[in-house]
Amino acid sequence: MDFKKVCVVGLGLIGGSFALNLKQKGFSGEVVAVDVNPEAVKKGIELGIVDRGGTDYSFVKGCDLVIIATPVGVYREVIEKITPFLSKGAIVSDLGSVKGELVYTCERLLKGRAPFVGGHPIAGTEKSGVENSVENLFEGAKFIITPTENSDKEALEKIKKLWESLGSEVIEMDPYHHDRVFAAVSHLPHVVAYSIVSAIGELSKEVGENLFEFTGGGFRDFTRIAMSDPVMWRDICIANKDNLLFSIKRFKEALEKLEELIEREDREGLKVFFEKAREKRSLVK
Amino acid sequence: MDFKKVCVVGLGLIGGSFALNLKQKGFSGEVVAVDVNPEAVKKGIELGIVDRGGTDYSFVKGCDLVIIATPVGVYREVIEKITPFLSKGAIVSDLGSVKGELVYTCERLLKGRAPFVGGHPIAGTEKSGVENSVENLFEGAKFIITPTENSDKEALEKIKKLWESLGSEVIEMDPYHHDRVFAAVSHLPHVVAYSIVSAIGELSKEVGENLFEFTGGGFRDFTRIAMSDPVMWRDICIANKDNLLFSIKRFKEALEKLEELIEREDREGLKVFFEKAREKRSLVK
Repeated sequence: MDFKKVCVVGLGLIGGSFALNLKQKGFSGEVVAVDVNPEAVKKGIELGIVDRGGTDYSFVKGCDLVIIATPVGVYREVIEKITPFLSKGAIVSDLGSVKGELVYTCERLLKGRAPFVGGHPIAGTEKSGVENSVENLFEGAKFIITPTENSDKEALEKIKKLWESLGSEVIEMDPYHHDRVFAAVSHLPHVVAYSIVSAIGELSKEVGENLFEFTGGGFRDFTRIAMSDPVMWRDICIANKDNLLFSIKRFKEALEKLEELIEREDREGLKVFFEKAREKRSLVK
Repeated sequence: MDFKKVCVVGLGLIGGSFALNLKQKGFSGEVVAVDVNPEAVKKGIELGIVDRGGTDYSFVKGCDLVIIATPVGVYREVIEKITPFLSKGAIVSDLGSVKGELVYTCERLLKGRAPFVGGHPIAGTEKSGVENSVENLFEGAKFIITPTENSDKEALEKIKKLWESLGSEVIEMDPYHHDRVFAAVSHLPHVVAYSIVSAIGELSKEVGENLFEFTGGGFRDFTRIAMSDPVMWRDICIANKDNLLFSIKRFKEALEKLEELIEREDREGLKVFFEKAREKRSLVK
């Protein structure tokens, strides 16, 4: 591995899993953590996931890799706070679900101080917190890396190698393209899951029954992602606003087409709609 | 057990699982099957799930329990076809996802011939076909029984006992109330899952990428129910049309509220929306 001392800024499930998997794969250097919540770092140390850390950004000092694993809404603030402590030659990367303009913002803020490499591991769970860090989380998962025309080639290669060593399949993608793709396949489903749970809360009042008591396994799977961290998803929705709103628009069109088929009891139309969707879904590995 | 010879009409995943679980729990009588598809019955016999059967409704003869496990759209036709063969004292019940008016229709069609008891096991998978029958599928699951003012008390008790012996928790519910409840917690999520897959198919064209290649575990869980049987769901949508359209309406309102919060980047509003949904979802066992 190319790194000797790694700092994770934001020690939640993803940051914690990154640190845990690094150690699992035999990383022998030091892993430190910075988090606004001292309890998170304390837990991380107790669990052996990180070696040292605290709320103080000076822990960044001497690290050759700084991984931002906070909600995307505080990246700007985080970069301002880590900058004074960045060692010469250090690389800054991240694990956030939004790239696009944000990658260029990070590059600009770090210009002359450190190269920035945007990354997004396509892995996670609906849980939160360092105590829910998952072993082998990135094994066999895709890792999207989003180089730009400003990217430092050497830093890029090091980050690629890092994720390959964690077992991920590294895929290069334009940052803006990334945001269109994940607005559809990740951000939209989360927004829909939160909405359906909210709607069933309302319907419970109208039906006069706690509807959540009558859910089966399908519903549990379907709404699991509505257990995800509210602040993380608030930030994603805002940072990828335009693409997400576009995806929601297309989703509403599909739903409204289905509504219309139900409304006029179009037996053939409904069957075809469901068959086509099933066929598409069956291609998902 | 109160029954000696059981006929399952419609040998798919649910009918097959019912037969399989019956045998698993030590039912020593005969289980026969009728299905429009001779292959289904052949497979069921090969797998030891049913003893005999075929496409001919005369297999109903001599059975003291007939379980309708077809899509709800063909109940009327099924009842017309089984009626000539119903033995004196036979009970007819079902495993369908829609009750309401349908229960009264079944009662009326069977009047003077056999008591009807509406039932709905809250269990299943997204798969189809007798070959995907699941052991212990009903163990610990809810079974909704929907008596009416016309119900035969003795038949009702026998069906209750039957499902308790399969390990289910039997819950009595008014047939119309049932349809309002399951429009929200089951039919709505299915319609939404099919719609989101359909939308992502459309978005794939616009984004210029096969988006299904970039889905993670969350998406897989979220859209699993879009693999469900198209004919079964077509029939459910039509049979429970009004309640389903009402649930879709409430869902769209929730989604549009969220859309508005995203549109105006309401940080606090988004956080609260997600927190409330997460709290509700966390109550699901």
